[in-house]
Amino acid sequence: MRGTMMDFPLTLTPILVRAGKLFGAREIVSRMPDKSLHRTDYASFHRRSLALAEALTAAGLKRGDRIATLMWNHAWHLEAYFGIPVAGGVLHTLNLRLHPDDIAYIAGHAEDRFLIVDDVLLPLYEQFRAKHRFERVIVVPLTGKPVPAGTESYEDFLKSATGSYTPPVLDENDAAGMCYTSGTTGKPKGVVYSHRATVLHTFAAALADTLAVCQRDTVVPVVPMFHANAWGLPFTAVMVGAKIVFPGPHLAPEPILDLFQDEKVTMSAGVPTIWMGMLGAMQKNPGKWKTQPGLRMVVGGSAPPVSMIRDFDALGWRLIQAWGMTETAPLGTVCNLKANLADLSIDEQYAYRAKQGIPAPFVECRVFSEEGEAAWDGKTMGELQVRGPWVAGSYYRLDDPDQKWTDDGWFRTGDVATIDGDGYVKLTDRTKDLIKSGGEWISSVDLENMLMGHPGVREAAVIAVPHPKWDERPLAVIVREEGSSVSADDLRKYLEPKIAKFWIPDAFEFIDAIPRTSTGKFLKAELRDRYKGWKWA
Amino acid sequence: MRGTMMDFPLTLTPILVRAGKLFGAREIVSRMPDKSLHRTDYASFHRRSLALAEALTAAGLKRGDRIATLMWNHAWHLEAYFGIPVAGGVLHTLNLRLHPDDIAYIAGHAEDRFLIVDDVLLPLYEQFRAKHRFERVIVVPLTGKPVPAGTESYEDFLKSATGSYTPPVLDENDAAGMCYTSGTTGKPKGVVYSHRATVLHTFAAALADTLAVCQRDTVVPVVPMFHANAWGLPFTAVMVGAKIVFPGPHLAPEPILDLFQDEKVTMSAGVPTIWMGMLGAMQKNPGKWKTQPGLRMVVGGSAPPVSMIRDFDALGWRLIQAWGMTETAPLGTVCNLKANLADLSIDEQYAYRAKQGIPAPFVECRVFSEEGEAAWDGKTMGELQVRGPWVAGSYYRLDDPDQKWTDDGWFRTGDVATIDGDGYVKLTDRTKDLIKSGGEWISSVDLENMLMGHPGVREAAVIAVPHPKWDERPLAVIVREEGSSVSADDLRKYLEPKIAKFWIPDAFEFIDAIPRTSTGKFLKAELRDRYKGWKWA
Repeated sequence: MRGTMMDFPLTLTPILVRAGKLFGAREIVSRMPDKSLHRTDYASFHRRSLALAEALTAAGLKRGDRIATLMWNHAWHLEAYFGIPVAGGVLHTLNLRLHPDDIAYIAGHAEDRFLIVDDVLLPLYEQFRAKHRFERVIVVPLTGKPVPAGTESYEDFLKSATGSYTPPVLDENDAAGMCYTSGTTGKPKGVVYSHRATVLHTFAAALADTLAVCQRDTVVPVVPMFHANAWGLPFTAVMVGAKIVFPGPHLAPEPILDLFQDEKVTMSAGVPTIWMGMLGAMQKNPGKWKTQPGLRMVVGGSAPPVSMIRDFDALGWRLIQAWGMTETAPLGTVCNLKANLADLSIDEQYAYRAKQGIPAPFVECRVFSEEGEAAWDGKTMGELQVRGPWVAGSYYRLDDPDQKWTDDGWFRTGDVATIDGDGYVKLTDRTKDLIKSGGEWISSVDLENMLMGHPGVREAAVIAVPHPKWDERPLAVIVREEGSSVSADDLRKYLEPKIAKFWIPDAFEFIDAIPRTSTGKFLKAELRDRYKGWKWA
Repeated sequence: MRGTMMDFPLTLTPILVRAGKLFGAREIVSRMPDKSLHRTDYASFHRRSLALAEALTAAGLKRGDRIATLMWNHAWHLEAYFGIPVAGGVLHTLNLRLHPDDIAYIAGHAEDRFLIVDDVLLPLYEQFRAKHRFERVIVVPLTGKPVPAGTESYEDFLKSATGSYTPPVLDENDAAGMCYTSGTTGKPKGVVYSHRATVLHTFAAALADTLAVCQRDTVVPVVPMFHANAWGLPFTAVMVGAKIVFPGPHLAPEPILDLFQDEKVTMSAGVPTIWMGMLGAMQKNPGKWKTQPGLRMVVGGSAPPVSMIRDFDALGWRLIQAWGMTETAPLGTVCNLKANLADLSIDEQYAYRAKQGIPAPFVECRVFSEEGEAAWDGKTMGELQVRGPWVAGSYYRLDDPDQKWTDDGWFRTGDVATIDGDGYVKLTDRTKDLIKSGGEWISSVDLENMLMGHPGVREAAVIAVPHPKWDERPLAVIVREEGSSVSADDLRKYLEPKIAKFWIPDAFEFIDAIPRTSTGKFLKAELRDRYKGWKWA
């Protein structure tokens, strides 16, 4: 027996239409390349997104065609976020931090037909244009300069629309967007988000118990729109009608802090490196920026040290951890304190806030160790596996999916985690980042977080180095704070009361900067390579 | 091109499983018939719901079979809310306030196979048992007394489960529940909620911008679980892991106020009559009940007068209007103030809070007058029409659907409304409650709300009475406040500065009580009947 409810597909079209009707006057602010601020509103965004959809259709877009974007975070990219999928196309956000050869590979693998590109990113486009031929290259004239020959202006392109366009009725399982993982090994792999998965993810991110994005919020997606849809924040903000402030290409701490103050920002999202820089700037200039009380910042990509959560609390901001991956759209877990934890001591609460949180509704998590499914005891480590309606079930056109799915259909994240009795997931390491010493596991991430809690340490990365007796032993790579002269002995003494003796790194190396991936994560592969010939004293 | 995401159906099973895993220790409190409080937790609720599913299956439940409940709001009803649909059955909540003949008609029309009934409701069951034969009658022994011959004890029924039950994989379009509308005219009509519609509605109700139900909430569904799934609150509370407090059969103001105080309630939902009674009790006993600051009460079913919203504000509670129907699962619109209204004067803000709110995401609203689709100008009245993924597309087994759907697929609510430029829907009347005087429309609901703002008026209902010259004219039926001697002249003078002269009722009748429907709404049909022979002086 079936329900008698309407057959109403979950696509992005109703979100766009509703935003235009209900939130027309709500502002959308973009930081331009010249640092000026561009202001528009939802009414214009709605009209222009439909114009883009119409112009793309007139230009020959067929259902399911991939349209690439090579853009910073700004209002024009938001138009592409809706205009492309609403027309039946597939929004393919290219990661401008990748090597040009990788960008070309990805555009080729996805068979992207058109490209929408910021004029300030044309020099990057030049580096791979010979390797993938787009049928049309549509340039957003952010600087106001004429676009080069062989390309067309985005504004002219939009002018071709009549304004009397009605979006097609789409199937909710149709593709809306795609994104390639920027792993540190292997070829990038494509995830294709359906309309349905994107809509459900949007609902999930606007729940009171997850990110609680609401109409009264002013939201800054600092996380790039070419990283897992800026964690879905553009879709979520538009669904609820929040004011959106885009940082454009200016991701240094000071211009973002200026935006936070001047635009009265209440919510943001980004990786720990961004927040670390902003924390440093605020600590150097006490009282310089007046921000909204209770400003909340979602942090993902990698775990922030507890010391950072504490430091932000002291400034009246609230850091909220979340975990996800390109393959999970990305919202997997969010760390808010459950009601039963409200009576814990402050230190105990921080121990929970240092975890990645509990699974969002309809995201199911489990941990698998060599002995099978692990108990939710907060201790047993194993690979985190997930499933749910916005979790990838396969990669795009990849015959050898690298054993990323279990036989019973769960996605293997490659992250090592524990889950405690309250359901909080805590990532310890990537499977390849665990250190196995004398048959026991050591978490490099835990060590790094502890080390970064030392006032003399700015950054710490811990890697496994082969050892004749213990198989592997930890080596800590340290970047000192400016003016600090912290020594290996200081750090050993600092760690001793905190952890088991065998966890303490056998060696400390002091360097100037830790290499990073394009998403700001520590590039441990490079460190492992650098220290692969390590000789123990 | 399709997405590469998992095919993960939206059913109630993951909500139940997650609640058991993540929120096991969270409390569920029920007021028993003898007024004592029964306490259990999510772990037990999860286990017992699965036991119910297993026992039903063992008893012969087949996919799609209807299982009726005749129950108050309590933990056992919550088990039925999940145990029945998780087993593949259809939860059919019978409205115990209907006439026994209507209950029998409804159970027969739905072909309910089994009945789960509170022992305290057996006398009601006796009144219709001869008219619909259930295969099995399972009695919840709330009083602890043995169940009668020919029935079986719910507790014994649950004991038949082994505890090793795995719920079946269901299709998200399968029926999960059904509910018959309790209209004042015509035969009751059945709406069949799919799992998908129920899940999406659950997400919608937990958004930060709608009811914002969250894990830290303590929720009291005062609205009966046999009225449109208690507005979905049981599903929403379980999805987020809120503490749930059920009032059982005790719906008088004082026992509910005791619960609000003793259980530290933060959120509730019910019809205006309930809140009106509680307001009266609090005003008579100032300071008697200490409740949580910011306690929010969702009010639906009919619109509360602005004076009630103000009075509750003064007590530190927040009344939030919502609008919906059995046919909309029921969440349609919710009235929170948008960011752009924050700068309005207090009085202007109340004018918005007196409206029914803006459409929830994915609920689309429009107003149709005789001239076609009305502008969103806050003035043009017409029939409110809606569509969305949790809006009924038809009634269950009803060949003549009474023209409830438009040719282009929208549901015709029968409510008359305006929509303003900010998207706020304001109901004026049911189509049949409008008064047409000399070709102009008069809103009886507006008149009633104004009249109920007068301190001497407890209740006011306005109906149309035939008039030789004007076609129809308004007659106001008034229930005075205790001790008040307000007169027709007083009320005329009170209304004069507020409305157009032709809106002022030509006659005022003072009576002891206004007849009500089983859902607490004014039964205007009966008033119309009472005054049908009215002679104008």
